[in-house]
Amino acid sequence: MKVAVYPGSFDPITNGHLDIISRASKVFDKVIVGVLINPEKKGMFSVDERVDLIKRVIKPFNNVSVQSFSGLLVNFMENNDSNVMIRGLRSVGDFEYELQTSLMNKKLNPNVETVFMMTSLEFSFLSSTAIKQVAVFGGCIKELVPDEIIDDVLRKAKEFN
Amino acid sequence: MKVAVYPGSFDPITNGHLDIISRASKVFDKVIVGVLINPEKKGMFSVDERVDLIKRVIKPFNNVSVQSFSGLLVNFMENNDSNVMIRGLRSVGDFEYELQTSLMNKKLNPNVETVFMMTSLEFSFLSSTAIKQVAVFGGCIKELVPDEIIDDVLRKAKEFN
Amino acid sequence: MKVAVYPGSFDPITNGHLDIISRASKVFDKVIVGVLINPEKKGMFSVDERVDLIKRVIKPFNNVSVQSFSGLLVNFMENNDSNVMIRGLRSVGDFEYELQTSLMNKKLNPNVETVFMMTSLEFSFLSSTAIKQVAVFGGCIKELVPDEIIDDVLRKAKEFN
Amino acid sequence: MKVAVYPGSFDPITNGHLDIISRASKVFDKVIVGVLINPEKKGMFSVDERVDLIKRVIKPFNNVSVQSFSGLLVNFMENNDSNVMIRGLRSVGDFEYELQTSLMNKKLNPNVETVFMMTSLEFSFLSSTAIKQVAVFGGCIKELVPDEIIDDVLRKAKEFN
Amino acid sequence: MKVAVYPGSFDPITNGHLDIISRASKVFDKVIVGVLINPEKKGMFSVDERVDLIKRVIKPFNNVSVQSFSGLLVNFMENNDSNVMIRGLRSVGDFEYELQTSLMNKKLNPNVETVFMMTSLEFSFLSSTAIKQVAVFGGCIKELVPDEIIDDVLRKAKEFN
Amino acid sequence: MKVAVYPGSFDPITNGHLDIISRASKVFDKVIVGVLINPEKKGMFSVDERVDLIKRVIKPFNNVSVQSFSGLLVNFMENNDSNVMIRGLRSVGDFEYELQTSLMNKKLNPNVETVFMMTSLEFSFLSSTAIKQVAVFGGCIKELVPDEIIDDVLRKAKEFN
Repeated sequence: MKVAVYPGSFDPITNGHLDIISRASKVFDKVIVGVLINPEKKGMFSVDERVDLIKRVIKPFNNVSVQSFSGLLVNFMENNDSNVMIRGLRSVGDFEYELQTSLMNKKLNPNVETVFMMTSLEFSFLSSTAIKQVAVFGGCIKELVPDEIIDDVLRKAKEFN
Repeated sequence: MKVAVYPGSFDPITNGHLDIISRASKVFDKVIVGVLINPEKKGMFSVDERVDLIKRVIKPFNNVSVQSFSGLLVNFMENNDSNVMIRGLRSVGDFEYELQTSLMNKKLNPNVETVFMMTSLEFSFLSSTAIKQVAVFGGCIKELVPDEIIDDVLRKAKEFN
Repeated sequence: MKVAVYPGSFDPITNGHLDIISRASKVFDKVIVGVLINPEKKGMFSVDERVDLIKRVIKPFNNVSVQSFSGLLVNFMENNDSNVMIRGLRSVGDFEYELQTSLMNKKLNPNVETVFMMTSLEFSFLSSTAIKQVAVFGGCIKELVPDEIIDDVLRKAKEFN
Repeated sequence: MKVAVYPGSFDPITNGHLDIISRASKVFDKVIVGVLINPEKKGMFSVDERVDLIKRVIKPFNNVSVQSFSGLLVNFMENNDSNVMIRGLRSVGDFEYELQTSLMNKKLNPNVETVFMMTSLEFSFLSSTAIKQVAVFGGCIKELVPDEIIDDVLRKAKEFN
Repeated sequence: MKVAVYPGSFDPITNGHLDIISRASKVFDKVIVGVLINPEKKGMFSVDERVDLIKRVIKPFNNVSVQSFSGLLVNFMENNDSNVMIRGLRSVGDFEYELQTSLMNKKLNPNVETVFMMTSLEFSFLSSTAIKQVAVFGGCIKELVPDEIIDDVLRKAKEFN
Repeated sequence: MKVAVYPGSFDPITNGHLDIISRASKVFDKVIVGVLINPEKKGMFSVDERVDLIKRVIKPFNNVSVQSFSGLLVNFMENNDSNVMIRGLRSVGDFEYELQTSLMNKKLNPNVETVFMMTSLEFSFLSSTAIKQVAVFGGCIKELVPDEIIDDVLRKAKEFN
């Protein structure tokens, strides 16, 4: 049974994230979306709110689940019997950051394998940061985030503004 | 009549910005310098101060004007009957950021065209951030910012320091 | 009257090229597609065949024409009263090559301005080289090259194979 | 049963290739090494010689096999009931080439998924080209190619020289 | 007598930094490690603490010393009769930042020469930022920072956490 | 006595090469320009012609000499009591190629240190290839190659054309 972990901030989940989840669910037996609790970064959504948004959009995938975690990612993977981590790649900037991160994780736990997927073309320019900016400035975020959570993002953007 | 918008923070305007403005003024009938009001980022100069500095240095160009704006850039362009945006490119890092931003703008308004110019060689290493650091540390900023505003930048750097 | 030149090998023209031509035709008064005669590189199509393929696909644009040229690009532009060159950008690799080429052209003729457009998302992975490989191996090239010239490319690929 | 294909030229197989094969064999149920027959490129080793070298070094992995193939990669995968392709990533240059290739393959067959692994640190500077150059100039290729095939590479380099 | 300055934040010094110091000490007659006092950035260690950590790990090198400095780097170099600055390069991101910084320094003082060394392979993924994160999350930092200062970093990480 | 080797094809030497030679001559006690004899690549100038052109332009530097060499670069350095190699860096593309080459050289001879200098701004877009193309197409190569050898390059370009 191949269990893969897909870690990130997901503040909020975007169609780019969902694209990776959907494709990974066909390559691995089980996919766990891991929402990182980062004490140094206050996001737009709380960690619990992010987990809730993800739960709603992964319903169509019966081999995908979601949990939040804190501390070292390699420890979270070990606790869930997983030695494969999935990461999306959109650009050269992503590539260099991910190369350094995967080498550090390999140093911390040589059994952990990081596997990458290129984000699908139509989502390759998406980032949670860019989407939050568009939402705060009142732009249309249709096709950028899953339809089920558009209202949640616009409501939060108003509070933020 | 081809109206092009050149958006940015311009905190402060540098010789690299002025180089793009001068070259764009020969390619398009009218150029509007758009100073973005970004509530999340407090700069060295206020937005009004930046607009004033730009007004002083664009005097030689009779087809160039300046305005500040807030909200979505594509809306600002629409209000000024412009469907062409100009951006300068200095490095690979610029390129990737601009690629993602131009694709998001295209998503928000398919009629908007982003056109890029490579910054001239002698200005390719300039950034407002680097110039502010040199000024704060008492370095010489001649040839980095237009001569007309050197004193303004040094005075502001002293307040900042 | 703003005349812009769009130079390249076009061996053959792809939907990525046509995308740039179509968008440039809305930004400039006249666009001249310049097919470079490069004695050092024997392509799949002869230069005349490439010019003919381009003529067929630019019919919908009344402000776009095509010519072949040899020698220095800056001289070809001068002979056509143009001081603006358009180039498409798909990737970091493109960016660096284009940065060096545009700086060399600026050196040869300081009046020449190179203006860049990012290739539209859906064409950002296209290159004449990749399309020729797919055609030679019998793959489907629909949506990769303009419909009008699909048969020409497949016929040439067979000869080539 | 998850079957993954690892395609390449392998002229010759390097320790970087073997590193990817070994790690992939722990992530997927079956791994097929596919040696591409490229009529346009004459290598140092013939395709059959490359297949033979690979056979010798993959003996320790009971879920790994090797075949040569010609034509489109997506067709080769379909004939082997595989919808997952593995590719190694060493550098930014690799990343951009692989991004364009994976998008073209996705266009040719939307069911094909390309999954990437970063080459392990100690092999990240290896390429068949660089190793052939070192061998032709009489340099030491220990730790660059699997021990079992060092003599084959040095013998071929002498013929080549 | 060739005096080279190796400037940085060193918050804290890593094995990547020490690798550059060791190799530079064989190329230049004297190496001065310069710890930059940056009023805008509060680090994990104070500047004095960083100088102390460096003093302990450079003991084996009799031609290497350490000082903190504030203001312009080119002025610090002039005060120490040095016109050569050493910088380490790990990635494309480093390269672009360093290219712009070295061109700005050349502008401020044409006599200053920046010389670069590629970080050794086994340290190429290290950064003070990544190491602090691992330490704060209780991960093992052996082989990431010099053995002599591991306890200092873990103690500081606890305070930080 | 610090002896540094500056290896390359130099087909022909450009002002970018001369810029690196001039700056390196101030950092190291002796600089040897090494012209690589590459059997696989036929250049515009023969190796002897390249050595002659270099001899003419390095006359102002009394600590700079030139030799051609074949085989492994690390062996050439050892024969000249040098453990420092100088390379110029112009772009991200250069950086990645040089990173892999320097790591391979380090593998072949751990005592060899590769030291890099960023090409000066005004020469950052120069390459022997681009200059040869401009010369073959009859463009002006003043300020691109040293004045002393302009006629040699134009004469050779005519033969080539």
